[in-house]
Amino acid sequence: MTRIVIVGGVAGGASAAARARRMSEDAEIIMIDRGPYISFANCGLPYHIGGDIQSRDALLLQTPESFKRRFNVDVRLHTEAVAIDRETKQLQVRDTQTDATDTLSYDTLILSPGAAPFVPSIANIDDSRIQTLRNIPDMDRILRELEQQQPTHATVVGGGFIGLEAAEAMRQRGLDVSLVELSSQVMAPVDPEMATPLHKELEDHGVDLRLNAGLTEIEPQQDKLTLTLSDGAKLDTGLVVLAIGVRPETALAKSAGLAVAERGGIQVDSQMRTNDPDILAVGDAVEIVEWVTDKAKLIPLAGPANRQGRIAADNAVGKQRHFGKTQGTAVCRVFGLTVASTGMNEKQLTQADIKFRKVYVHPMDHASYFPGAAQISLKLLFCPDSGKIYGAQAVGAKGVDKRIDVLAVAQRAGMTVFDLEELELCYAPPYGSAKDPVNLAGFVAANEIRGEADLLYPEQLTSIQSHQQLLDVRTPAELERVGQFDGAINISVDELRDRLGELDKETEYWVTCQVGLRGHVAYRMLVNSGFKAKNLTGGFKSWQMWKGCRQPQPIVTEGE
Amino acid sequence: MTRIVIVGGVAGGASAAARARRMSEDAEIIMIDRGPYISFANCGLPYHIGGDIQSRDALLLQTPESFKRRFNVDVRLHTEAVAIDRETKQLQVRDTQTDATDTLSYDTLILSPGAAPFVPSIANIDDSRIQTLRNIPDMDRILRELEQQQPTHATVVGGGFIGLEAAEAMRQRGLDVSLVELSSQVMAPVDPEMATPLHKELEDHGVDLRLNAGLTEIEPQQDKLTLTLSDGAKLDTGLVVLAIGVRPETALAKSAGLAVAERGGIQVDSQMRTNDPDILAVGDAVEIVEWVTDKAKLIPLAGPANRQGRIAADNAVGKQRHFGKTQGTAVCRVFGLTVASTGMNEKQLTQADIKFRKVYVHPMDHASYFPGAAQISLKLLFCPDSGKIYGAQAVGAKGVDKRIDVLAVAQRAGMTVFDLEELELCYAPPYGSAKDPVNLAGFVAANEIRGEADLLYPEQLTSIQSHQQLLDVRTPAELERVGQFDGAINISVDELRDRLGELDKETEYWVTCQVGLRGHVAYRMLVNSGFKAKNLTGGFKSWQMWKGCRQPQPIVTEGE
Repeated sequence: MTRIVIVGGVAGGASAAARARRMSEDAEIIMIDRGPYISFANCGLPYHIGGDIQSRDALLLQTPESFKRRFNVDVRLHTEAVAIDRETKQLQVRDTQTDATDTLSYDTLILSPGAAPFVPSIANIDDSRIQTLRNIPDMDRILRELEQQQPTHATVVGGGFIGLEAAEAMRQRGLDVSLVELSSQVMAPVDPEMATPLHKELEDHGVDLRLNAGLTEIEPQQDKLTLTLSDGAKLDTGLVVLAIGVRPETALAKSAGLAVAERGGIQVDSQMRTNDPDILAVGDAVEIVEWVTDKAKLIPLAGPANRQGRIAADNAVGKQRHFGKTQGTAVCRVFGLTVASTGMNEKQLTQADIKFRKVYVHPMDHASYFPGAAQISLKLLFCPDSGKIYGAQAVGAKGVDKRIDVLAVAQRAGMTVFDLEELELCYAPPYGSAKDPVNLAGFVAANEIRGEADLLYPEQLTSIQSHQQLLDVRTPAELERVGQFDGAINISVDELRDRLGELDKETEYWVTCQVGLRGHVAYRMLVNSGFKAKNLTGGFKSWQMWKGCRQPQPIVTEGE
Repeated sequence: MTRIVIVGGVAGGASAAARARRMSEDAEIIMIDRGPYISFANCGLPYHIGGDIQSRDALLLQTPESFKRRFNVDVRLHTEAVAIDRETKQLQVRDTQTDATDTLSYDTLILSPGAAPFVPSIANIDDSRIQTLRNIPDMDRILRELEQQQPTHATVVGGGFIGLEAAEAMRQRGLDVSLVELSSQVMAPVDPEMATPLHKELEDHGVDLRLNAGLTEIEPQQDKLTLTLSDGAKLDTGLVVLAIGVRPETALAKSAGLAVAERGGIQVDSQMRTNDPDILAVGDAVEIVEWVTDKAKLIPLAGPANRQGRIAADNAVGKQRHFGKTQGTAVCRVFGLTVASTGMNEKQLTQADIKFRKVYVHPMDHASYFPGAAQISLKLLFCPDSGKIYGAQAVGAKGVDKRIDVLAVAQRAGMTVFDLEELELCYAPPYGSAKDPVNLAGFVAANEIRGEADLLYPEQLTSIQSHQQLLDVRTPAELERVGQFDGAINISVDELRDRLGELDKETEYWVTCQVGLRGHVAYRMLVNSGFKAKNLTGGFKSWQMWKGCRQPQPIVTEGE
């Protein structure tokens, strides 16, 4: 009888335990967790604070008792893994309540220790009014503070998933909220211009957004905390949620001599095995292979953690299963908007020195003549030669997750932008358009690779030369209403054909419209008539988004 | 200067005209349509009748004037193509208002004639209270009848997309509605059991659903029509919408000696060329290649029509573009439900004699602990050996179009059920689950191919033998509340391990639960303990859906 010991009872660990039991009725399976709960809905914590999820019990998906009954897994709470003796295959554990120690022998050990919120070394950071939000006890502490101290202002430090969700939760509870983010944008998985609508949405919902600012000092007072930010600003607040990011829990693995990357995670092969073949590791603590670059990376997400747990369990009972590369598909609700992404963003591609092209489209989520249509801004990054998809990002009120899911599958399948042109997606007026936003992005990108379009990016507009001329093909009424480019001449697309005589063949016309569609029509008209032209991808809308995110560069504090 | 003449100014034709202009500034482009409108939103017609789309003008996407201004296309309305002289490359046209004839020479002719609603040969079918719904004049006639006659009851004949949308529109206007459908199910693209929830939804919204019934007689009276159905029933009604299906408009092509399939559509190659290389054809009138079988088929959908128009235009100006195979991805709103499908259904696979396996899953559209989650019923059809995806269908209140889009891309990419296990899709509690419904379907299907599951289908339950025993692993309280199988023994999954002694090793246990998940746990427990077992895919929910659609076989009327 084989004994499988699992360290960590949430996503990866719990998935591994359940799967191991389904694969083997007679394996002995022991799952330990140092906390008081297993298999809780950690993605749901901010939503319980905000009130979307009313019942705290709804977050507790399994108990040791239910896991024992259904899966015959011996679950031990308040049990911390202290050390691994790989020679004798024994795990030393400690009861966190009694401090009693014990030893568990194992045939296979599966580590799913997760990641811990990063807490900067700032004086007074351990004040009870400063909390992280990673597990049920964290949530309970925040709720207790809210109920007992009745703060009227909360500060969230960090504009990632948890930070955004926590800020929204605090607003939902009626608190004033400041959101402090060290970089020039929230939601790091997307590029800065794609975060511009998020910044506006946060501010529209009353969030005091402090970009390019870090937390540098905390001054506790009787009834409040006074925070100092790296830009010198002072903030009086009643509660601080630290959501700066997480660090993989690698101490146990390191002390056992398992391979752990410098400042990184536990290293595993595609079977989720560490350098000790009897020890597997899964979840937020391990490094997995990024889709485009084939490089090891920390991608702390629930979906991959669950799948890794399944695969580790299979391998623990003698199967040969492999975990592939990871795209890091992710989504976040930000008040009335949804932001989602898959694959690599422009920042990462630039840093990895990978040549890319990009397109923006801003279509409606469904047929514009059907009520309730909402604009989606979609950015697609792809290989300039093959058209292979490198990544995609989208933001909008509706239908964002659907388009990123479609693009995530397309990327995973190795599809190109030419394939996107041909995708057959659900169409009826309430759901989409005969030319879906994903098709449209494919059209634009494929047109460019085929040489049927020559695209400009918003950032190029600031370096326009004297032989180049912005030509805005929107109607004068639109310019009046929506805004316009400095220095552009204006001939609406429907008049352009008759007014080509006003243009000259030495000038390169930088065509713009609202979202890039009419610009393309005008661009084609111009080049087919012997003029030089380029078209701004995504038009004025892309320019607005790009311009909205040109904040000063971040100031790095010591904490990071 | 080349002259391109386009016959038909809606989806395929209008797309071809716009694209041709973008590709060539100096081509002469003439687009004729025998109706009074081009480029109208035909998918929006029922929604204007129902009131979702308030403005009639919203349906008129382009006018001849706007098309002329933007694309320099010479649009001629009320102009019917009468004959093609392929020898001299001339098109004979007739003005439908004046009867004047004219001749248009062409270099390339693009036919986009569409399809016409099928109207059965029944006496009095031309009564003004009997209408089809294909174009703006049809819609206007229906609206006029509704306004002038103020009928209180409408009858929709045909339960396809248009029929379902028309029935809903009439209910939205407050009419009593009978929906008459010749077969045993509405929404033919999905299999009968997947239509069961639609039948219930229709009835829950007050639609008098008459399945297995055709329209056989019409008796016009002063203030009503009395209809006789094939089952002998009589219906008094004020208005009839015929939505029995469409027939490709092939008369012009046939008379010109172009290749047209018997009872089918215009035959084209992958460049959309007919057997005359100077004549291309696109849209609902042409046969395209079905994805799985590689056989020619009529697939009258807006998305493919638009893409074919683009490709035909490219080929008309000298490019070499190809249209691939078609999956027929489609979606329909049915009151509060969405139904969608892609690829082949079980009926088609059976008819084509293609071996397949299928799984059902019934998960929530997003994390069940987050409010507003709604159940999706998803059916996946795949190759028993390779796991290649043959088709998928889903029905539910939310998130249905997203999952079918994901599966449509996966099928198009040649993915297998093993790939579905690994898809990385957007997950946050408001949007999905860490194990998305598509992942779940992949798990179940891949488990079976790997030999880790042995699935039963609902239809097998009626032929259970004496050495087989239904074993329901739900709790007694659930059986009480939800319903149960006749002849099943009941041991809840959480008690099963302790009660294995009550089972015997000669019997094959047919395990069932509510949706198949606990059944799988119990199945694994049983086979890993030396028992014989199978698990009902999708559990009791699948059984209910299957049972709900076992109606008498359809009676075929002469009309079809």
